Amino acid sequence: MTPEAIDNYYMARAIELARSGWYTTMPNPRVGCVIVDVNSHIIGKGWHERAGEPHAEVHALRMAGTRAKGATAYVTLEPCSHFGRTPPCAEALKAAGVARVVAAVKDVNPAVAGKGMAILQEAGVETRSGVLEEEAKALNEGFFKRMSSGLPLVRAKLAMSLDGRTAMASGESQWITGPAARSEVQKLRAQSCAIITGVGSILKDNASLTVRPGELGLANAEDICKRQPLRVVLDSTLKTPIGAKVISGLGQCLIVTTSQHSPEKKAQLEQAGAEVLILENTDNNTDDKVDLKAVLKELGRRECNEVLLETGAQLAGSMISENLIDELIVFMAPVLMGSEARPLFNLPLHSMSEKKELIIKDIRAVGDDWKITARPISQAS
Amino acid sequence: MTPEAIDNYYMARAIELARSGWYTTMPNPRVGCVIVDVNSHIIGKGWHERAGEPHAEVHALRMAGTRAKGATAYVTLEPCSHFGRTPPCAEALKAAGVARVVAAVKDVNPAVAGKGMAILQEAGVETRSGVLEEEAKALNEGFFKRMSSGLPLVRAKLAMSLDGRTAMASGESQWITGPAARSEVQKLRAQSCAIITGVGSILKDNASLTVRPGELGLANAEDICKRQPLRVVLDSTLKTPIGAKVISGLGQCLIVTTSQHSPEKKAQLEQAGAEVLILENTDNNTDDKVDLKAVLKELGRRECNEVLLETGAQLAGSMISENLIDELIVFMAPVLMGSEARPLFNLPLHSMSEKKELIIKDIRAVGDDWKITARPISQAS
Repeated sequence: MTPEAIDNYYMARAIELARSGWYTTMPNPRVGCVIVDVNSHIIGKGWHERAGEPHAEVHALRMAGTRAKGATAYVTLEPCSHFGRTPPCAEALKAAGVARVVAAVKDVNPAVAGKGMAILQEAGVETRSGVLEEEAKALNEGFFKRMSSGLPLVRAKLAMSLDGRTAMASGESQWITGPAARSEVQKLRAQSCAIITGVGSILKDNASLTVRPGELGLANAEDICKRQPLRVVLDSTLKTPIGAKVISGLGQCLIVTTSQHSPEKKAQLEQAGAEVLILENTDNNTDDKVDLKAVLKELGRRECNEVLLETGAQLAGSMISENLIDELIVFMAPVLMGSEARPLFNLPLHSMSEKKELIIKDIRAVGDDWKITARPISQAS
Repeated sequence: MTPEAIDNYYMARAIELARSGWYTTMPNPRVGCVIVDVNSHIIGKGWHERAGEPHAEVHALRMAGTRAKGATAYVTLEPCSHFGRTPPCAEALKAAGVARVVAAVKDVNPAVAGKGMAILQEAGVETRSGVLEEEAKALNEGFFKRMSSGLPLVRAKLAMSLDGRTAMASGESQWITGPAARSEVQKLRAQSCAIITGVGSILKDNASLTVRPGELGLANAEDICKRQPLRVVLDSTLKTPIGAKVISGLGQCLIVTTSQHSPEKKAQLEQAGAEVLILENTDNNTDDKVDLKAVLKELGRRECNEVLLETGAQLAGSMISENLIDELIVFMAPVLMGSEARPLFNLPLHSMSEKKELIIKDIRAVGDDWKITARPISQAS
């Protein structure tokens, strides 16, 4: 094998390790690390599990012990250089005496951004960056987007019939998709820092929007469910019922409203356990709705990497027409609901030139349904 | 290999040969034949190319010559026992002295139906049936449906956006899907005995609905295009323009109308080259439209195995609601056309219990678009 192929091989192992933290590292990035000695033996492996707990490099260095001296460390993200919740990993690698550090991708966190690798180079450690960079970026798209723009990655989950409908005209819609698709939705929730919905959906379905271990279909489901995504309800006039499951369910509920709300209702909702945030809509050309971009900025400020939109055609249509959706996850059921049924998006377009172009990244069977992953081209990475 | 595995192996070769006639055998079935001697050498191969020309067995026997004596013949369809356009193949196999005949599927043609195998058995030839039966049936689904019910297999071709729309509200729709999808449509036309459309589509698009060698993307395209599918226009009051391309294009055009037509227009259309057929609508509960089931019966009578429906939401909706569609081929473009745009089917359903359930048989990428093959469950094989 060429030296490049060897680096790719161990980095692929590190990326696999990083995936173990898929549902738990947030707001931190998913990171994996492999340490390899001069005889090509893997002497250390680690992945970051949870914010506040050791980083991937620390786990791998602990496993390697004194054997780390002279070894090569493969890390899916540039080792950190700053004291965050834990001490800097670049210093730990230096102290352990590793001879070489290979990173997949440079950290865009302004607190790191090249400084980790610089610390190592100054200490005489050989470094290489950019190994399996695209694959490593895909581990942490939300984190990278937040670091570079302040906004989370927004994924919209939708369920439709083959003819693009979500509910009958009457509103009847329960169980369009099957149990396998619903389990996938649980996984999407579990990997998200927050779930956004509209008050209309709450009034219609009274969904809790929590992640439930029994439906997640993962071995460590109980552990994953200890962290519940923040549930965010957009509710310009505070119509959310005091007894809504989105408030009483596990985890935090944030209701975003406007100055039109009633202070009495605000106090009642807070009493019931919700946080109520007033976001003034400063955008002149919109009406009395919550400012969607401002909501995303607020979630970025709260360190949300990935956000899941689970809502009806109205809010989903506004989000897509304001170009705020990065990825669509459409579960398509093998059924026709007919031309009177409700649309996927309330999205009034009048000529083909206004159409929203997408890139379809993936289509796969999920039980009897099909999961379509698509990206609006303006947002496509 | 077990004797069963050996039979499967040679039958798979025969099925592959049969596929060579995919676009040319109609109204006959697609059939392939392989002759194997006692030393497991393939000594004869053949496939049926065109009605009136030799059957697969005859080609294979000619290639094998006197070596056919004592050999095994693998045929994808029970050898015929009747004088049709050519003499019976069962007699030819018997005369050649083959020791064994293996058939994939029994012919459902009432003129054959077991008689071919019986002729062979009476002559002391060993026979076996049912080898790769499902695969062989899939070669000739339309033929089998016509033989058993008198009706052709009906396939509807549709093109939609990801959100299930076919055209803007204004009617603007050109080029939803890309060139690869359009080439697939040419292939669907080429394998069909007839194409059905509504007069509305003719008035809107003036499409010729012909198969064009340059767009077919097949090596023997010129040869395939010598046979053009019958173009069938449903036109209850004879609004089809005299100069419509569907009439002037290569091949035959059949316009189906009702007693409401004007005899003058009928004479003009006939003068222009179209055949005009009056089908009385005997169904009490329908209006002044052409009787769709009667059209399909007529096409069955004209030996159409596979029929392609290429039309707008109105006729496609009527066909699906009357359960006349066996298969949907939906080309899905990676685009959103919005909630004002036109639906896939004009199909007014009012409750989830009325929804049309499908089985999705296949989804595959075709250029930037996706081809979805689905079957209504009531019609699913």
